[in-house]
Amino acid sequence: MILRVGQGFDAHRFAASGSGRELWLAGLYWPVPENAAPAEAARYEGIEGDSDGDVAAHALIDALLAAAGLGDIGSLFGVGSHAHGAGMHGSDMLRETVAHLADSGYRPVSASVAIVGNRPKIGTRRAEAEAALSAAVGCPVSVTATTTDHMGFTGRGEGIAAIASALVERR
Amino acid sequence: MILRVGQGFDAHRFAASGSGRELWLAGLYWPVPENAAPAEAARYEGIEGDSDGDVAAHALIDALLAAAGLGDIGSLFGVGSHAHGAGMHGSDMLRETVAHLADSGYRPVSASVAIVGNRPKIGTRRAEAEAALSAAVGCPVSVTATTTDHMGFTGRGEGIAAIASALVERR
Amino acid sequence: MILRVGQGFDAHRFAASGSGRELWLAGLYWPVPENAAPAEAARYEGIEGDSDGDVAAHALIDALLAAAGLGDIGSLFGVGSHAHGAGMHGSDMLRETVAHLADSGYRPVSASVAIVGNRPKIGTRRAEAEAALSAAVGCPVSVTATTTDHMGFTGRGEGIAAIASALVERR
Repeated sequence: MILRVGQGFDAHRFAASGSGRELWLAGLYWPVPENAAPAEAARYEGIEGDSDGDVAAHALIDALLAAAGLGDIGSLFGVGSHAHGAGMHGSDMLRETVAHLADSGYRPVSASVAIVGNRPKIGTRRAEAEAALSAAVGCPVSVTATTTDHMGFTGRGEGIAAIASALVERR
Repeated sequence: MILRVGQGFDAHRFAASGSGRELWLAGLYWPVPENAAPAEAARYEGIEGDSDGDVAAHALIDALLAAAGLGDIGSLFGVGSHAHGAGMHGSDMLRETVAHLADSGYRPVSASVAIVGNRPKIGTRRAEAEAALSAAVGCPVSVTATTTDHMGFTGRGEGIAAIASALVERR
Repeated sequence: MILRVGQGFDAHRFAASGSGRELWLAGLYWPVPENAAPAEAARYEGIEGDSDGDVAAHALIDALLAAAGLGDIGSLFGVGSHAHGAGMHGSDMLRETVAHLADSGYRPVSASVAIVGNRPKIGTRRAEAEAALSAAVGCPVSVTATTTDHMGFTGRGEGIAAIASALVERR
């Protein structure tokens, strides 16, 4: 068995207040809670991006592709509103990524993503997120989350970032 | 043997000048050097946080927990001044983390943390830091350190960040 | 076979406009395209640093050294204009790093670097960069690249960062 490691990173800007853009992260849809006050509802404003803006999924895709030596999310899904990946959800992009790896004889062994941002509160739905991502990737995928103490672009709430690592094996 | 990889990240703000807060990082206490001039002494101002603010230890904890699929530092130690982890030092939190992994059949194989910040100068005590962290984790733990050329929140000296990676095996 | 993982990070500032500094990144020289308009030529301004400023190579060096428990780029190559690494290109530094690992019985198995910045467009020369880095390290090295949506120091074009991961085995 030949093991290879991959590193991925992604960052996206939160959509402007009132955009009505859905919030998708870590393979999950984060709907505005019913009867949420405006300040609370604003915490569920979506993330910009050609696809659904799911930085956790995107960082994992880069980590998986890198581990297999198969380029990155831009080379597989394209960039811009007419790209192949436009409008796709993170889980579907992950499934397509894993199929692409399989075509080249690679299988994901383990993956992990650290989400950096003020919102949403990942811990409240970690098990669900890990289940969604693990199902998409076909191996255990872990999710951690932290903030940057109001420092930097993540701390100011301008956007959200994710750092991912993946192990794959060549059959 | 089943290998799994974990990714961790943490960032904390340096305490305000004159806070008197002790500086703990990479499992070590960094006391103000004797007879240090004020400008030099200010470089040993501590890091904010519910615990001792040791971002290197915290990023390693997230990497280890992620590798084992056991949540993150927030889920294990809690958040806030009344949390279980409040007031704990990084090495003790790492020991408790590893015990938690062992309860689920996981053993750390290797871990590494990259510290990003202006101070303290890790290179002067790297061997000591690696010895402290390796003893706490029970496997080789490496420490690298770099700055961001005065860019961003780490470069402006507002805070310090750490990115960690860990391999664990399931017995 | 004993596997160990290493994490590396580096960030450097882009040189001031008109510096004439060559742009070296991911083991490659990125010359200004012939007949480039000034705005396009400015996208090939170099990266500051004691050596050639190749943050991708430097992050990989830290990841490889960390995986082998052999310090970091500062301890191996020194810091400042009189350092051993001053003026060296990233590929040569990587070769020296791998020789240093070999002296201690370590061999790189796999490595990966995620480049974070606005320029140059890595995707246009990814295969070439991966070939150069893989030749220098002696194992497959992957390169991914992303931006931060105009956020933070990378998004404002002040500088460029890289996060790397490496696996090594002890013979």
